[in-house]
Amino acid sequence: METLARHSVKLCPFMQRASSSAKDVQLLRNFNMRAIAQECPVVGKAMRKRTVGNSGAARTYATASAARVTPDPASDSAVDSVIDHSTQESSFDFEGLFESDIEKKRLDNSYRYFNNINRLAREFPMAHRQLEDDKVTVWCSNDYLALSKNEEIVSVMKKTLDKYGAGSGGTRNIAGHNRHAMKLEAEIAALHKKEGALVFSSCFVANDAVLSLLGQKIKDLVIFSDELNHASMIVGIKHANTTKHIFRHNDLNHLEEMLQMYPKSTPKLIAFESVYSMSGSVSDIAKICDLADKYGALTFLDEVHAVGLYGPHGAGVAEHCDFEAHRLHGISSVKGYKTVMDRVDMITGTLGKSFGTVGGYVAASRKLIDWCRSYAPGFIFTTTLPPAVMAGAAEAIRFQRRHLELRQQQQKHTTYVKEGFEDLGIPVIPNPSHIVPVLIGNAELAKQASDLLMENHRIYVQAINFPTVARGTERLRITPTPGHTDDLSDILLDAVDDVFNRLQLPRVRDWETQGGILGVGEKNFIEEENLWTEEQLRLTNKSLNPNVKDPVIDQLEVSSGILV
Amino acid sequence: METLARHSVKLCPFMQRASSSAKDVQLLRNFNMRAIAQECPVVGKAMRKRTVGNSGAARTYATASAARVTPDPASDSAVDSVIDHSTQESSFDFEGLFESDIEKKRLDNSYRYFNNINRLAREFPMAHRQLEDDKVTVWCSNDYLALSKNEEIVSVMKKTLDKYGAGSGGTRNIAGHNRHAMKLEAEIAALHKKEGALVFSSCFVANDAVLSLLGQKIKDLVIFSDELNHASMIVGIKHANTTKHIFRHNDLNHLEEMLQMYPKSTPKLIAFESVYSMSGSVSDIAKICDLADKYGALTFLDEVHAVGLYGPHGAGVAEHCDFEAHRLHGISSVKGYKTVMDRVDMITGTLGKSFGTVGGYVAASRKLIDWCRSYAPGFIFTTTLPPAVMAGAAEAIRFQRRHLELRQQQQKHTTYVKEGFEDLGIPVIPNPSHIVPVLIGNAELAKQASDLLMENHRIYVQAINFPTVARGTERLRITPTPGHTDDLSDILLDAVDDVFNRLQLPRVRDWETQGGILGVGEKNFIEEENLWTEEQLRLTNKSLNPNVKDPVIDQLEVSSGILV
Repeated sequence: METLARHSVKLCPFMQRASSSAKDVQLLRNFNMRAIAQECPVVGKAMRKRTVGNSGAARTYATASAARVTPDPASDSAVDSVIDHSTQESSFDFEGLFESDIEKKRLDNSYRYFNNINRLAREFPMAHRQLEDDKVTVWCSNDYLALSKNEEIVSVMKKTLDKYGAGSGGTRNIAGHNRHAMKLEAEIAALHKKEGALVFSSCFVANDAVLSLLGQKIKDLVIFSDELNHASMIVGIKHANTTKHIFRHNDLNHLEEMLQMYPKSTPKLIAFESVYSMSGSVSDIAKICDLADKYGALTFLDEVHAVGLYGPHGAGVAEHCDFEAHRLHGISSVKGYKTVMDRVDMITGTLGKSFGTVGGYVAASRKLIDWCRSYAPGFIFTTTLPPAVMAGAAEAIRFQRRHLELRQQQQKHTTYVKEGFEDLGIPVIPNPSHIVPVLIGNAELAKQASDLLMENHRIYVQAINFPTVARGTERLRITPTPGHTDDLSDILLDAVDDVFNRLQLPRVRDWETQGGILGVGEKNFIEEENLWTEEQLRLTNKSLNPNVKDPVIDQLEVSSGILV
Repeated sequence: METLARHSVKLCPFMQRASSSAKDVQLLRNFNMRAIAQECPVVGKAMRKRTVGNSGAARTYATASAARVTPDPASDSAVDSVIDHSTQESSFDFEGLFESDIEKKRLDNSYRYFNNINRLAREFPMAHRQLEDDKVTVWCSNDYLALSKNEEIVSVMKKTLDKYGAGSGGTRNIAGHNRHAMKLEAEIAALHKKEGALVFSSCFVANDAVLSLLGQKIKDLVIFSDELNHASMIVGIKHANTTKHIFRHNDLNHLEEMLQMYPKSTPKLIAFESVYSMSGSVSDIAKICDLADKYGALTFLDEVHAVGLYGPHGAGVAEHCDFEAHRLHGISSVKGYKTVMDRVDMITGTLGKSFGTVGGYVAASRKLIDWCRSYAPGFIFTTTLPPAVMAGAAEAIRFQRRHLELRQQQQKHTTYVKEGFEDLGIPVIPNPSHIVPVLIGNAELAKQASDLLMENHRIYVQAINFPTVARGTERLRITPTPGHTDDLSDILLDAVDDVFNRLQLPRVRDWETQGGILGVGEKNFIEEENLWTEEQLRLTNKSLNPNVKDPVIDQLEVSSGILV
């Protein structure tokens, strides 16, 4: 009860606003006290109880409005023998349920407090908060390559806005299919060297729509899913409404044990990611493809946190697996053998992180794309992204493809930050990718650390709590970009060190004494090699195949299904 | 078999491209004939059969790649007693399934052929096709108020792009919450006079996310759904995974019969639309609210095809029900009684049709919004819309709120077109709204009519076939806007008349002899009054309450949950 009262006070508009200044006192006087008090979770409830008497769980709102209901001739048609439920009982207390569910979140520290962060294109990686002169450095966005502020991309978007307007005006089937969609899908197909691609409102929608369709339309499909898969894949697999097996994170022995339970002819799907966003762990795509071949499974690979960042052209970890071959072949297929990227059946990705805009996609065979295009409600029955967004995303894909140095800078800045934390004994969950997950291990402390960074150091790093990560593994997820220079990193390192001191957060040595967790302070833990080798980091843009042309014209027929 | 061959020829890249011109002959010579032939559904299949012998349903792709699989040490861990499925059998033929599913669509004329339509902001309602000088008039977009080309909105978007960049860079919880989201949600909440609003990637996502959440979290919820509800609501209700009842379209007697089957205390939800997009029919919101009060149900109203078009401020049909009261009160609540809009618990809407951009939303009580914000995966785990899109949408809402004349022009142009068709005896499914559904009644003929309008008259109206509408009720769905002047309408009327003559499509008198359908040619059918009265159509912008301020500052706290 004390907690409820404390939380209520936190929420109270009076308490939040009131100070003893004359201005505030005047402000309080101007309020319609009674109306606002009715909104108060504490006072309001008491007031309502007094109004309706002791009606128990009665829903005040419904009771009040039911009183106004005039006799309805429609009800004459009701079956006579049915009891008249309209008057005998009280309605279900919906608002009470909403309130108690929210209260649960507050009590277990999983309630989300949004930060008002306005990222400034011309002062990257700075953002202003509510007031324009209240500026902070953003260290947790997914604008991994800083392309959101890229002038070439913004310029293409502005020209497209002028010429083609603010919105697409329809679904892909009804007035919303255009050259921007075709060009973007051609770029995506070329990037992943697939026959086709399909763009969705987001990659959440792409994952949900494609996985649920596969499960619903392929009779007896069995889905094998990594336990750390993203919420969008979990939702899609749930909606697939078919048999599913969850294998331990990146545990391919476990996966194979499960695959072996079914005849090879049983249709199967392995759903996994390349880079897992909250831990930075990376899957072994080639070995998963081996298992898929061996047991007759489709492979569904989410490269959302990898596109733009891995591979010579930023196609993701699958491209990175055959770095040299893809580097030499540009956007053409590698001749003579199937690369790891070729072997993956479906690759999903986002336009909202490294590619700086918004939207998601799947790239796959021509037939699979046409099948999704023809059957997935989440694709069919929704408005196409605005022409300017699609043109910007296509430009971003082209731009980053040619700019190997963006990926390399991102990697170097990541290494600088990771090494800095290591020197300070600050625990970073070890991984071979670009994610810097600073382990806190407690929900309330993670939020306090985030708040202290913001208030004392003007640094914004969001705390990542349950359900996004498991309880006891709460963390600060730091994402360096090409714009996060060593100077900014030094400030970050000092700030995090200060916050660790102030809150007395456990350092690596503290985790060691407890036996370690997630590779932090664990004895005999063998760190994986970084995905980017020293050699790859020394290449220049000139090492990319200079004969690479934009795929726009040649690929149009390939990527957009049937066109007129 | 003849149909398959005919369709294959339609798809064949040679047949499509080849002409007898010297250039084309040269082009054909340049093709790698063998590689392309393998892609051919007819020749390629024969070639593959020859390669793999008579292996039946074997999947060529999997067979080929399985041959490359090297022994995998991971497989050692497999349970010994399990049969080794990896070699004994052939894999499931996924590509064969995709192909046959697509073929089904071709055979029943539900395969979708996308038209490349590039709507031109400065030549509204014109668009160019593949080539920029190949222009057509668009008569079927959902850019109902032509706001997508509005210079004030485009200008706000360009400024926002310059200042805040191309994308939001994160989810609402992680670096993607900003003043644009807050402002937009404040505008939406104010428009619908609700305590709060939540923006999603699209209204497909909003409907899916909110309905599925309600079903999953409210134990024993029973959902009552209009049979013509949009695909997004059907999907959401399916994902709600709870008891549902479908009531006959707009049949409130049927709805009440179903409501009566449950005790009042059973939690219930009535899900319906205001304007049904493919027929233009309109629900009786007030009566549904009466039933909801009587039987203790939440009301979930989709105003996707009504926002911008009805009500003095474009809040939709719910606002239109109390036109005068809302007109006088501006964006303030109507004092003294609950309007129909007040009585609806949840209103969902889109930013991608009348509001000219992209995205969707739900507006509701503060608690319900915070509950969705806290629990809906489709909201939580997805990238926020770009700042420019949200700023443009907020500007569009403000703009249209002040411009009553846009709604009036839209209505007048609709009436002009409907009356024109009536004079020509061309069947329009009667309705009281802004949709002009020209009945064709046959899938193939509907596509032919659409193609003829495009090729002979340079008019684009997409054919609407199954599954979007029931078989036998296929139609051309025409959507006039303020930009579709009487001159353009005259051209449209002549063109449709010509196409009806050429294809000998059934006119009203033909439907009459068959007894009629959907109100067309049906004896004793009573047409509903238009939603907009003559009096309402005569009002001027000055009749709107001049004291209406933008809600931006005052409403910020209300709309965005908990802010820092």
